[in-house]
Amino acid sequence: MSDLAAFLDSFDERDWQEADAADGPVRFAMVGVGWWVTDQAAPAVAASELCETTVLVSRGKEKAAQAAADLGVAHGLSSAEFADGVAADDYDAVYVCTPNAAHLETVETAAALGKPVLCEKPMEASAERAEAMIEACEAADVPLMIAYRMQTDPVVRRARELVAAGTIGDIAHVHGHMSQSLLRDMFSDPDQWRLNPELAGPGASVTDLGVYPLNTTRFVLDADPLAVQSMLYSEHEGFEDVPDERAAFTVRFPDGVFASFSASQQAHETGFLRIVGTEGEIALDPAFFNRNDAGLTVARGEQAAEIDFDPVDQMEEEFDYFADRLLTGREIYPDGEHGLTDIRAVEAILAGETEMRTL
Amino acid sequence: MSDLAAFLDSFDERDWQEADAADGPVRFAMVGVGWWVTDQAAPAVAASELCETTVLVSRGKEKAAQAAADLGVAHGLSSAEFADGVAADDYDAVYVCTPNAAHLETVETAAALGKPVLCEKPMEASAERAEAMIEACEAADVPLMIAYRMQTDPVVRRARELVAAGTIGDIAHVHGHMSQSLLRDMFSDPDQWRLNPELAGPGASVTDLGVYPLNTTRFVLDADPLAVQSMLYSEHEGFEDVPDERAAFTVRFPDGVFASFSASQQAHETGFLRIVGTEGEIALDPAFFNRNDAGLTVARGEQAAEIDFDPVDQMEEEFDYFADRLLTGREIYPDGEHGLTDIRAVEAILAGETEMRTL
Repeated sequence: MSDLAAFLDSFDERDWQEADAADGPVRFAMVGVGWWVTDQAAPAVAASELCETTVLVSRGKEKAAQAAADLGVAHGLSSAEFADGVAADDYDAVYVCTPNAAHLETVETAAALGKPVLCEKPMEASAERAEAMIEACEAADVPLMIAYRMQTDPVVRRARELVAAGTIGDIAHVHGHMSQSLLRDMFSDPDQWRLNPELAGPGASVTDLGVYPLNTTRFVLDADPLAVQSMLYSEHEGFEDVPDERAAFTVRFPDGVFASFSASQQAHETGFLRIVGTEGEIALDPAFFNRNDAGLTVARGEQAAEIDFDPVDQMEEEFDYFADRLLTGREIYPDGEHGLTDIRAVEAILAGETEMRTL
Repeated sequence: MSDLAAFLDSFDERDWQEADAADGPVRFAMVGVGWWVTDQAAPAVAASELCETTVLVSRGKEKAAQAAADLGVAHGLSSAEFADGVAADDYDAVYVCTPNAAHLETVETAAALGKPVLCEKPMEASAERAEAMIEACEAADVPLMIAYRMQTDPVVRRARELVAAGTIGDIAHVHGHMSQSLLRDMFSDPDQWRLNPELAGPGASVTDLGVYPLNTTRFVLDADPLAVQSMLYSEHEGFEDVPDERAAFTVRFPDGVFASFSASQQAHETGFLRIVGTEGEIALDPAFFNRNDAGLTVARGEQAAEIDFDPVDQMEEEFDYFADRLLTGREIYPDGEHGLTDIRAVEAILAGETEMRTL
């Protein structure tokens, strides 16, 4: 019983934190002022004790200044001003939240300015550009973290610990899915960057959504993918430039672990991750979305535990993790090489459907 | 509200039944006296109003006679006696529950005796033998049903109706899984027919378990598979003669519907089926196993209904459906052609792993 008490008591403990408010704050320039920055990242940082937003950057000066005024941020800069190093003394690190294919350029600017980088996922539009990002940061000796918000969510960290402790035995199968209705529920305009390969990379659903179950599985299993199979489908006119309005892809991990994933930008908003082992099963359901209702079920043999917990602000956890690593000079887990592995998998999945046996 | 009342009130109604006890009973010869017959099928038939078991058949006379005595069944016959038509006037139909590769021979005997056949899934060990079974029944003009117990479970029938009514929009993705620990929890002897290709066909997990999510999806979606991809893994010594201790296979259905399935005979006992559409989602969880806790969740947009219901005896429903069809002379849904489609899919899945892109 005391083991269960300890498990519950420490459920949302920040097992990674060493710094405190007195060590900070880490002051951020956020590049990109889309809804993810204004509605998710900036409010999370405003609530954080380790972080602060001092600069917002957008392509146009006016939009940046307006967003800065709205959010009470000191500086609103155009991309050109940012590239010129304007106000560089007023921030310590850069958060990159532009369209995927603009990540590299932004990171190169940050690296040139000697600023550590927190870069949104997917890392870039191609493996080649992701590699260039890693090189730019290494050459400038600035830390690079890829913003996998699931990895600092306590429920995902506990799932990883349970797997590592052998709670469900050897892992056999994983199922994961993430879908949303991009054009209906989120953006009415089909002319948007997530559907434009020039800005988003070669896909829409795998690139933006499929990486969630894929990367979360990598983290929970502490394993990297070996090979992939994929089926792809695009029919809606909004998806005519991308192959993956829907995608189903199977990922082979070491020791014969098979992960069956799917993703769609044109379906009901839902997500789950389910891991079946030889002795039990772990389910995150819902996962990725509906963060306030996130659930964890752990079955082992005939017994099962359904864990209820208060949700964290995933973005606050993520920013604080990054800030803590910077403040204590420790290694970052989801670094550039980690992000590059996903980009290589995404490229392989989107390179075209793999062989099918017709019936 | 009245629609919900009607939905709940008629949830487990037998939408297929036209006959009643006065029309029956249909008297069965059950061939095979393994645990599925003694613990599942025979008790279900004993409880049924439309069916009765009058004959049990096993390879050896003694085992058959003992089982008949134990279960209060009139005749216990050897296979040879059955083939010779002993007691043929005392049964109306034949239930086939032998190892897969012995189905054809048993069905041929039944057909020669002019008896309708309820044959366990998977239908046979190969498509060629399944085709021969269909021909034998057609030549003798005897009805043939494949025993897909999920198809007469009310929760599955309601799921099918909900899909047909457009409750979750157009179907986009399906995930399904079924696994059990064959050697640990069920049979301690690794020398058993489910792991012997001569008796079970070319696989162990896809053949015996994978057909559940596959066939249930076909039924719920009212659609047949077009193509498959597969990954296969066998490592445990008990599985040295079969390729699929674990299998992950993706099935392409018409209209770009992708189904991600997995199955293992060497993992935690669990099963689920999840269907994501453009407007909502249906989950059967648990499914296939744990029939007393079977759950149904239906989400549509922001709303969701979790349906609780009393479980039925799946085998009683299945036998009564078959008996009802015989008594009323109506067409059988899961017929030989229906079962053959699964066997062709299983063969394609087990023909070897399909192309993978290595990372």
